[in-house]
Amino acid sequence: MNAFRLLALAGGLAVAAPSLAQQGTKADQATLAKIKDEGLNRSRVMETAFYLTDVCGPRLANSEGLNRANQWTQKQLTSWGLTKATIEPWGTFGRGWDIDKSYVAMTAPYYHTLIGAPKAWTPSTNGVLKKQVVVVKATTEAELYKYKGQLRDKIVLLDVTAPKTSFEADAKRYSDDELQKMAAFKPEAPAAAAPASAEMEQRMAQRRALLALRTKMSDMMLSEGAAAILSSRGGSDGTFFTSNGAPYAADAKPVLPELEMAPEDQLRLIRLAEAGIPVELELETRTRFQTQDLKGYNVVAEIPGTDKKLKSEIVMLGAHLDSWHAATGATDNAAGCAVMMEAVRILKAAGVQPRRTIRIALWGEEEQGLFGSRGYVKNHFADPATMKLLPEHEKLAAYFNLDNGAGKIRGIYAQGNEAAASIFQEWLKPFADMGATTVTLRNTGGTDHLSFDAVGLPGFQFIQDPLDYGTRTHHTNMDTYERLPADDLKQASVVVASFVYQAAMRDAKLPRKPLPAAKPEQRM
Amino acid sequence: MNAFRLLALAGGLAVAAPSLAQQGTKADQATLAKIKDEGLNRSRVMETAFYLTDVCGPRLANSEGLNRANQWTQKQLTSWGLTKATIEPWGTFGRGWDIDKSYVAMTAPYYHTLIGAPKAWTPSTNGVLKKQVVVVKATTEAELYKYKGQLRDKIVLLDVTAPKTSFEADAKRYSDDELQKMAAFKPEAPAAAAPASAEMEQRMAQRRALLALRTKMSDMMLSEGAAAILSSRGGSDGTFFTSNGAPYAADAKPVLPELEMAPEDQLRLIRLAEAGIPVELELETRTRFQTQDLKGYNVVAEIPGTDKKLKSEIVMLGAHLDSWHAATGATDNAAGCAVMMEAVRILKAAGVQPRRTIRIALWGEEEQGLFGSRGYVKNHFADPATMKLLPEHEKLAAYFNLDNGAGKIRGIYAQGNEAAASIFQEWLKPFADMGATTVTLRNTGGTDHLSFDAVGLPGFQFIQDPLDYGTRTHHTNMDTYERLPADDLKQASVVVASFVYQAAMRDAKLPRKPLPAAKPEQRM
Repeated sequence: MNAFRLLALAGGLAVAAPSLAQQGTKADQATLAKIKDEGLNRSRVMETAFYLTDVCGPRLANSEGLNRANQWTQKQLTSWGLTKATIEPWGTFGRGWDIDKSYVAMTAPYYHTLIGAPKAWTPSTNGVLKKQVVVVKATTEAELYKYKGQLRDKIVLLDVTAPKTSFEADAKRYSDDELQKMAAFKPEAPAAAAPASAEMEQRMAQRRALLALRTKMSDMMLSEGAAAILSSRGGSDGTFFTSNGAPYAADAKPVLPELEMAPEDQLRLIRLAEAGIPVELELETRTRFQTQDLKGYNVVAEIPGTDKKLKSEIVMLGAHLDSWHAATGATDNAAGCAVMMEAVRILKAAGVQPRRTIRIALWGEEEQGLFGSRGYVKNHFADPATMKLLPEHEKLAAYFNLDNGAGKIRGIYAQGNEAAASIFQEWLKPFADMGATTVTLRNTGGTDHLSFDAVGLPGFQFIQDPLDYGTRTHHTNMDTYERLPADDLKQASVVVASFVYQAAMRDAKLPRKPLPAAKPEQRM
Repeated sequence: MNAFRLLALAGGLAVAAPSLAQQGTKADQATLAKIKDEGLNRSRVMETAFYLTDVCGPRLANSEGLNRANQWTQKQLTSWGLTKATIEPWGTFGRGWDIDKSYVAMTAPYYHTLIGAPKAWTPSTNGVLKKQVVVVKATTEAELYKYKGQLRDKIVLLDVTAPKTSFEADAKRYSDDELQKMAAFKPEAPAAAAPASAEMEQRMAQRRALLALRTKMSDMMLSEGAAAILSSRGGSDGTFFTSNGAPYAADAKPVLPELEMAPEDQLRLIRLAEAGIPVELELETRTRFQTQDLKGYNVVAEIPGTDKKLKSEIVMLGAHLDSWHAATGATDNAAGCAVMMEAVRILKAAGVQPRRTIRIALWGEEEQGLFGSRGYVKNHFADPATMKLLPEHEKLAAYFNLDNGAGKIRGIYAQGNEAAASIFQEWLKPFADMGATTVTLRNTGGTDHLSFDAVGLPGFQFIQDPLDYGTRTHHTNMDTYERLPADDLKQASVVVASFVYQAAMRDAKLPRKPLPAAKPEQRM
């Protein structure tokens, strides 16, 4: 059965879907109860989260921390009885990069330690710099020219928007109203993957444009002989946002050492310098590049299926293991990984005998463009550039992703797949009392289910309470273990375990949307 | 007229007080309009705040930063046309202390820069320390003993409560309800200064108890040969609270180097160490003690009175210039100083000819126990230990203080002085449209008006919107210029200028409460 036929079938049955969902599954209530009991009463999700965050540390793409996490998760999944735990290369990524030292302080007009971190993939300083600063305010290449001749041997300060006194809470949960709006959403055209891809492409384009401007800035500052750059992408209260300051490609051209700073510190330096008060900084960055192994990796492991006919089919669940570098990537996305790992641990502990094979994947290099999952999908299922389907394409029953922070699950994004939506509605019923109720046809973007969706596979991301993901933790230096509410992660673990169990027991794979056309321009 | 007689008079007239307040003043509406116009349309309060915070820097008691601020404010007040601008010693404080370097990072199990700062008055490390950690969880001396023999050459980690995901806004303004409750407050007994003093004494006692326990801890750690201490008093998101880690007395006994840390960083170290994972830190602190001048200072300056009879009387306004050391003390209390300085600038710019002399005081060493204002009051008005009144005691018409953060003024605490309350009600009327409406008889504590109240002088603190003072800025490393909303400071400046003007023009000094009894035990 190819995907078109399956969609046609499912589409035709959409109205009757609840009964379809109830029929044709060998999932039983006793096992669902066991899943809840194990996940809520003997949870190990916080222990897993501790190892992923504190013990493995920051897990930047191809860094030592990500390598530690790959090794540890492979070992841990094996210890829980999963099989074929593998650190599987997905393709070529680029250089590894680690921080060996970072120190920055204002030494004149008086001493003050500054809060900041090197931007990813930026080089070391030549020992300890002791330099004056110059403020550069430019948003275009043209605006930079006026600074020519003023930058030699200076530390350049780039502008940042001032944080404001905050009258809104950092964290929130979805209200019933908001969830009802999501549930009521109707796509204008028949479900298609296009909007999600467009969104992703737009994000990628913006990211590339920003990177291009920054590259031009760095080029000029390099040629003008500036010593280093201090910039800030925002944040407040000691929290700052992080990103990459140079390409990770092995053959990337040189850039200056650059730090991302807490806005309060950056703004103090800027105000002083603009008032004509000489500002001197002391700055030492020691970073280390690794170019021996440029490959990127995912960690995969399985609970083998037990049904003779169905065990060659796969239910996948996953989350990305990589993070940014200035914190331990707790909500982005140790939370998702800990929940997915806990889900398979629960299934093993509950003694589940799935009909289909369950495969967990912990993706690498998501932050740079979903590279781990896209590489995996290309290697196993299909390249969206050609849409030549590999044999496994037919075998994937569903992929479930978790990557919207540490908030509990409130439902699931059906990505315009109406037939799947009806099934999910049924599967959520046992979790109504735990706050997971909502199926929306909306697409959501920004993470690894898109890699599956892009080749016509049923990939889904759960709806999660936002908490302080958007305001405080996402890509910041404060994405730490404290931001993980244990009750939320426990709830998410049992919901995911149950969804995976249902998908593994159901007679049919999950209905699919139409296969998308090949996108030869798509950059993998 | 002594204070008893004045109070009896004012008390008897309390019901009729609004008319009393309206009568007997030479304050005129045109001048009040000029004050508003100058303060709202040609404000320099943010410029003043910038100099106090960014340019002077942290202003710990007897530090170089406070010395810079003393020099700058003296000069600035003079430049605005105030007379007799003086850096006036109030008595002996203790050692000066400044930070020359602070660097702390985790170097194993992986590298991570940590956010923290030396506790005030703690010593330097002996160069760069590279040491293992040990977690010490003890709240009593007895609990410490079990750690004997385990501390040598280690960096000790003290426990801290974990920050939680925040569902409440950092900042708030007072609601109408809250203000109405304040306005409706009736003291149980006739107004007296006792409750405020009791509150202050309790705070002081708690502070001393905490200091005593910490001293015992440091003693034991010192004698056991520990290398340094890392502790945390809380905070979140990169914000941490600061305090002193050693006495400022010149003859204080030695303590270990100690840093106050961001809880997220401290907790990561603790979790790792408690999981049995070897944690190594790199730590360098260079602090510098100044023992040549142990005196503390206030900055005072005047706008001379013009009424032949009344110009020997004084209306005072003040705020404390000192701060904690890990930030620039923006809301605690550059805000108050900037507003008070702006108030006298406005009065000069508006060409006010006050009948009484207006005297601004910027206090030193408030954070250690209101020392600057208490010393000043003792030198100029009375020692609360003896209550022998000095000649100036009779001359003080009123003292107005501002030290509850950067929020706009919503009214004033009348400190149980009912007669004054009625007058304030009248004086607030022109500011109803700017949110300043409420007079409460409540006492408020914790700052320098208490020094006046303690000797029976009419000292008052304004009610201010709390904003994020209690949650985010008060005594933290994030008490920075960004936390100062310009509109709030402008509003406060015109309210204060107007109150000072009214007090300077009124026929009679402000009514007083009964003189308190001498308190020989009171430690000055």
